[in-house]
Amino acid sequence: MQGIVLFAHGARDPEWARPFEAIRDRIRATRPECPIALAYLEIMNPNLEQAIDAVIVEGASSVTVFPLFMAQGGHLKQDLPKILDAIRASRPHVPISLETAVGEVPELLDAISSWVLRRVE
Amino acid sequence: MQGIVLFAHGARDPEWARPFEAIRDRIRATRPECPIALAYLEIMNPNLEQAIDAVIVEGASSVTVFPLFMAQGGHLKQDLPKILDAIRASRPHVPISLETAVGEVPELLDAISSWVLRRVE
Repeated sequence: MQGIVLFAHGARDPEWARPFEAIRDRIRATRPECPIALAYLEIMNPNLEQAIDAVIVEGASSVTVFPLFMAQGGHLKQDLPKILDAIRASRPHVPISLETAVGEVPELLDAISSWVLRRVE
Repeated sequence: MQGIVLFAHGARDPEWARPFEAIRDRIRATRPECPIALAYLEIMNPNLEQAIDAVIVEGASSVTVFPLFMAQGGHLKQDLPKILDAIRASRPHVPISLETAVGEVPELLDAISSWVLRRVE
């Protein structure tokens, strides 16, 4: 069973988490059997390691991390690979893969562009 | 003519701007007559005031700011309204409106959820 971790930046405002919770809930509604957890780089909990462990405990035999960041900067290109390497080292039996940022997915760029265009028509 | 400003966080890595440039280019391809500019809160240029002035100079009689942020935290709830109020005060003849964050738009949450679901199927 593939587990899903939605990885976001984190912020002091608790309402900041709302979009990520909404995405998690939509995915859960479609795939209730799929272990899924949110994780945050900073300020909010759980962190990535805790979230990965949570989906493993729920039955995931592999884990895919989806960075819910608009773009790839130092956080995703430098910080995240180091964090993931440390997590992988102590969980060698669980393959952990990493998806790209939201802004590197052509269909999501299309969706954002279409939203802007609808609002200016 | 309505002008569009795509407002993003900014980062030290110049490649970070790529998704926002791609969104701008998609919008320009569909609506080449529409003045459009990118703007950044931090680190990158131009800032919001410079971008708003650029679309006014290009012929915009009103401007809509689209915050390309995943979620609404202190940046959008506290910083941005103050920045916008200062800009509006010295440009009273140009209505400047503000859209919501990407993560507050239901169809974009749907699009992100669908992407995740496609990747785990």
